[in-house]
Amino acid sequence: MTESELIERYFRRGGGERDDVVLGIGDDAALLRVPPECELVLTTDALVEGRHFLEGASPRSLGHRALAVNLSDIAAMGAAPAWALLSLNLPAADDDWLQEFSQAFGALAREQGVALVGGNLTRGPLSITVQLAGLVPAGGALRRDGAQPGDLLYVSGTPGDAALGLALQQAAAGSGGAATYAEADLAWLRARHEFPTARVALGQALRGLASACIDVSDGLYTDARRLLQASGCGATIDVERLPSSPALRRVAGAEGWRNVLAGGEDYELCFTVPRALATKLESAAAALIQPLACIGELTAGEDITVCSSGVVIGFSSEGFDHFRD
Amino acid sequence: MTESELIERYFRRGGGERDDVVLGIGDDAALLRVPPECELVLTTDALVEGRHFLEGASPRSLGHRALAVNLSDIAAMGAAPAWALLSLNLPAADDDWLQEFSQAFGALAREQGVALVGGNLTRGPLSITVQLAGLVPAGGALRRDGAQPGDLLYVSGTPGDAALGLALQQAAAGSGGAATYAEADLAWLRARHEFPTARVALGQALRGLASACIDVSDGLYTDARRLLQASGCGATIDVERLPSSPALRRVAGAEGWRNVLAGGEDYELCFTVPRALATKLESAAAALIQPLACIGELTAGEDITVCSSGVVIGFSSEGFDHFRD
Repeated sequence: MTESELIERYFRRGGGERDDVVLGIGDDAALLRVPPECELVLTTDALVEGRHFLEGASPRSLGHRALAVNLSDIAAMGAAPAWALLSLNLPAADDDWLQEFSQAFGALAREQGVALVGGNLTRGPLSITVQLAGLVPAGGALRRDGAQPGDLLYVSGTPGDAALGLALQQAAAGSGGAATYAEADLAWLRARHEFPTARVALGQALRGLASACIDVSDGLYTDARRLLQASGCGATIDVERLPSSPALRRVAGAEGWRNVLAGGEDYELCFTVPRALATKLESAAAALIQPLACIGELTAGEDITVCSSGVVIGFSSEGFDHFRD
Repeated sequence: MTESELIERYFRRGGGERDDVVLGIGDDAALLRVPPECELVLTTDALVEGRHFLEGASPRSLGHRALAVNLSDIAAMGAAPAWALLSLNLPAADDDWLQEFSQAFGALAREQGVALVGGNLTRGPLSITVQLAGLVPAGGALRRDGAQPGDLLYVSGTPGDAALGLALQQAAAGSGGAATYAEADLAWLRARHEFPTARVALGQALRGLASACIDVSDGLYTDARRLLQASGCGATIDVERLPSSPALRRVAGAEGWRNVLAGGEDYELCFTVPRALATKLESAAAALIQPLACIGELTAGEDITVCSSGVVIGFSSEGFDHFRD
């Protein structure tokens, strides 16, 4: 099959339908209508074999994650996702792979109202780059730099699961599978890595409530530190208030809070809220049925202090970086 | 160096400055203002090692081409380029490579008024994906599907040079360099491959004049056929009217017109103009000092007929396709 035939078969009708798409796949570029009261939000993120996933990774997971990691960036801005471009480098035109990949990508796109409006297919080592455009009311976007000392620090969901799921999967593959954990716990943790949930509705609900927001891709501690640096604040984080899944607690035990802080690839939102808006936030989260945890508060200065039962304890994390040796 | 440090050193101040960038590199996504009278134009194109360039390709050429191939898509829509995202998969953080790549990318971005507003760096087999957003007055974009029988068929510049330059470079590398052509001709042809010129000003000048437009990336014949198919027309093309560079004529000889039609990676514009607007077009092209050639005219039906001195001659081209075996 040619590139055009592959696009026709797997991608042309894959995404959501939107009436602001003047021209989608099939010309030199897509034409889109941006409402005059909105700002445009643009992001891109890539999944590269050997870095973000191992050879043989499930195409369903890759199709989902490639879009989810971009949805998460749009969510962290408080924006609504709208239009995606997909650049796929494929070693070969494998029908089964493309079928599963495109179904998973398309299912998430339709769920989130995202139209797939362009992209390209090239033969090459497997890597997937998605560009996602979103819309946000002008002046209403969440940024990293608006937090103040005294604000409360929150995180959604149960961070740490995804990284632990990946680590267990790699260990099982390496050792021939001598895992001693409950199958249901392993399945939960692995699913959090393979099928992360971008907190799109939460991000939009945080507009007017959160003073700053970031998505947790490289680990809660690392990404919280980025938000704090951009805002020129420090924070204290209480170990007892860190959220964790039952699976993580059973697998990681008493030191599981370290997994929660170090984590990575969680795609939860970490954000700050002025104390006066905390009650409004709790109502908004309840309406979304979205678990949130207040894990600490912001301080003057620039340090992050991790406390357990009021006692400062040591924690450091380098987070994930592709170019650190 | 970490990913953040690499971005800081090579890319943060790399592009043009624009006052419609609310928030550029450094948050979860970029925030941009789209004028209410404009539609948004989105495209993406990738350069993958082993497909679009050979190992050891000049980083200056790659930095230029990665942006130029996207500028060309924006040009083909008659739009003005505005904001770019850059996703770079790099085998290693090579300072010299990054310096040259980012300088070439930045120089073209500044020349074209394009702000680099985001992207990502990942370790992996070398590939470069750029997403480019542009702006076009609502309803004014050039599309592939507006041509009519009787319209004149045009192409800009001298197609065929880039593909011939690449072929000669590959042949020289393979044979140890037994080229018998003039060095100046080889240099011209190679430069047309390594440093293509996207016809951005021409594309914008064609708004209101061209009935359809496409950029020539896979070869003039192949891309003209795409335009014709989208418009439901055929065409006759006169071999005598095909433009060619002196270098191509000297190197390729009497059959050089086949190189012009087959070509590939030219990044010229192929477009149609109603006969009544031809004079206006010639004035516009003269004002831009942009050589154009009228190479034929559109017909009812769906065939492309190639003629020399009024006699139909055989020509077919498959164009370039990554997935055809």
